[in-house]
Amino acid sequence: MSTAGKVIKCKAAVAWEPNKPVVIEEIEVAPPQANEVRIKIVATGVCHTDLYHLFEGMHKDGFPAVLGHEGAGIVESVGPGVTEFQPGDTVIPLFISQCRECRFCKNPKTNQCENGWAADSHDVMALAESRFTCKGKKVLQFMGTSTFSEYTVMNQMAVAKIDPAAPLDKVCLLGCGVSTGYGAAVNTAKIDPAAPLDKVCLLGCGVSTGYGAAVNTAKVEPGSTCAVFGLGAVGLAAVMGCKAAGAKRIIAVDINPDKFEKARVFGATEFVNPKDHNKPINEVLAEMTNGGVDYSLECVGNVAVMRSALESCIKGWGVCVLVGWTDLHDFAARPIQLIAGRTWKGSLFGGFKSKDGVPEMVKAYLNKKVKLDEFITHKMTLGQVNDAIELMKHGKCIRTVLSVSPQ
Amino acid sequence: MSTAGKVIKCKAAVAWEPNKPVVIEEIEVAPPQANEVRIKIVATGVCHTDLYHLFEGMHKDGFPAVLGHEGAGIVESVGPGVTEFQPGDTVIPLFISQCRECRFCKNPKTNQCENGWAADSHDVMALAESRFTCKGKKVLQFMGTSTFSEYTVMNQMAVAKIDPAAPLDKVCLLGCGVSTGYGAAVNTAKIDPAAPLDKVCLLGCGVSTGYGAAVNTAKVEPGSTCAVFGLGAVGLAAVMGCKAAGAKRIIAVDINPDKFEKARVFGATEFVNPKDHNKPINEVLAEMTNGGVDYSLECVGNVAVMRSALESCIKGWGVCVLVGWTDLHDFAARPIQLIAGRTWKGSLFGGFKSKDGVPEMVKAYLNKKVKLDEFITHKMTLGQVNDAIELMKHGKCIRTVLSVSPQ
Repeated sequence: MSTAGKVIKCKAAVAWEPNKPVVIEEIEVAPPQANEVRIKIVATGVCHTDLYHLFEGMHKDGFPAVLGHEGAGIVESVGPGVTEFQPGDTVIPLFISQCRECRFCKNPKTNQCENGWAADSHDVMALAESRFTCKGKKVLQFMGTSTFSEYTVMNQMAVAKIDPAAPLDKVCLLGCGVSTGYGAAVNTAKIDPAAPLDKVCLLGCGVSTGYGAAVNTAKVEPGSTCAVFGLGAVGLAAVMGCKAAGAKRIIAVDINPDKFEKARVFGATEFVNPKDHNKPINEVLAEMTNGGVDYSLECVGNVAVMRSALESCIKGWGVCVLVGWTDLHDFAARPIQLIAGRTWKGSLFGGFKSKDGVPEMVKAYLNKKVKLDEFITHKMTLGQVNDAIELMKHGKCIRTVLSVSPQ
Repeated sequence: MSTAGKVIKCKAAVAWEPNKPVVIEEIEVAPPQANEVRIKIVATGVCHTDLYHLFEGMHKDGFPAVLGHEGAGIVESVGPGVTEFQPGDTVIPLFISQCRECRFCKNPKTNQCENGWAADSHDVMALAESRFTCKGKKVLQFMGTSTFSEYTVMNQMAVAKIDPAAPLDKVCLLGCGVSTGYGAAVNTAKIDPAAPLDKVCLLGCGVSTGYGAAVNTAKVEPGSTCAVFGLGAVGLAAVMGCKAAGAKRIIAVDINPDKFEKARVFGATEFVNPKDHNKPINEVLAEMTNGGVDYSLECVGNVAVMRSALESCIKGWGVCVLVGWTDLHDFAARPIQLIAGRTWKGSLFGGFKSKDGVPEMVKAYLNKKVKLDEFITHKMTLGQVNDAIELMKHGKCIRTVLSVSPQ
């Protein structure tokens, strides 16, 4: 029996308040309104940004909310005016939209879009835009996506239709970190309907963000020397991006030496553990590289590391890209750092135009140009989400993928 | 009688200690050593960076020193191994060198040079490199140049031979702020020997720095909207650079409304005095420009203004360039400012390869492509240097040019 047009009752992990475990609840998901798409989430990654909202940001107006923004799923039904999607389409929800109409979407310099969801308080949709309720209360949609739910509702501007051949439990990671910016429009990405849908969720975030930060934002050049600070999924994807761009040396920096073996898989050529040195890491890197690296990517979200990453760049032309997220503190440096010719940039979703980039990243994965399987260290169910959160909190995983609904 | 090979006794303004007036003294200037050039300084601008050393930086190891880095003059004699210059050449001393051999000089991305003068403490030459003594004491050369002296000695890597037609008391300002980077080598800049040498000193600093920051570092695009913070010589030169690059709107920002009329001469289209508004200047500019400017240039040297300048840029593609100098404090912002797509850069000497750029700027001035006369509000002699310093300290001048030696 079709659920179209009806409220769906389903399971979701609700974050009722900051700093507490999330709770698996039955929630109500309203039917999609004009230009909206209701999606059955098949798989989702657990990203550090979810933990950030829960344990670090903790904005009092940001709860209750359903977290999760690295998902993949199947369209269940569409609202009035939706022509681009139909029930059964394989999709990845996007935390940044691409309306294709605004001055940002029309400008090749940026992947920002002016017509995305309106942030009510920090990183959640405005209350009026959420389609979730639970126990009579409106529940916020974190980053507009809320993939820790069996169903979610999103504006079609923020949904990418992908090759149905893609394994949803892998490509979901592209929703936040790997996409490549080959630039083809999502509409042209019609593909092999025979592929394993249970792997693509990884394309929803961490992988696109890191990969794109190297390729699109830093614009790493062949033969260059790069340093990647932080070897979580985003950092590893940045290493992969540096390698794809032809970097000659890729120095992986992390205080957890357990991450180094994995970094080599993605292309790191050298490893530095700041704890092994008595001098600041920028001095260590300067000595290793005759003055500093050409490109550095901060994939931690720590303002002290942001400073180190800038100071590790060579004067004259070094480029430092902020990829890790935090908004609790200012980042800072001495003016001479920039005046001497360094550039400080930042990257959101790896600079990918979201609807264009993600299907292309899925294609690159299916063509074995981009790794995804290697990011996944754990597989669990939605009911085990708190275990996945604990693993990430203690640096014991790269990515845990949760299976949410049967495909 | 030739002075070549002999110690020259001449007048110079010696800064004996921080926060005190400079003193006109007789100093001894040693003959040029290998690869060095001794220059008779004809005219020099007084730049805020000179005041910075005296009143703000005040590094205890930076005194006694002869200030001044925006000069123009005539080669008096050359040391062994100098083939590029001969006595009588018209030149501008450069505070950054261009050896043409190092990896920085060979890289088109930067104007840094690895073989310049070695900073002993902050912004002065190492003691061993200075050719000045006074009353039996070694006197440091500020920024390697020391143009507040009738004679100075510099390495040939940091001297630009310019069109002798150029008025030295104007083009000296290019030594720190206007040059254009047309890219022709200084060696090709042989020109009309009939031109007025008493005007070119302005090409030694402030004008090249501001102009180049807009043209070379920000790479302002035609039709764009720019904001220039601070309307001293550097800021006015930045306005001129934005106009030369084809900017459609150039918003001049200063808390001293007396500067606005001058800014219009250089191309400003609008003026904002932050004191006229109750809200932060970035909000004022965002309202005027539908979200922010495409390019902002900080020409003050104040870390709070640096933050405002970044925050005044539009997300997605806004570029903020730090031009003003300070190293007393950190500059800072929230990470989201960069992550949302803004870029923070800096500019030293306007990104010009110094020996290449300055002669081309002189040419542009002689061809009326670049203004210099309009920067000069006061003319004085070296003996009046403390009056010039006071004028600048109180924002009562744009540029004072001091005549130093008769041409």
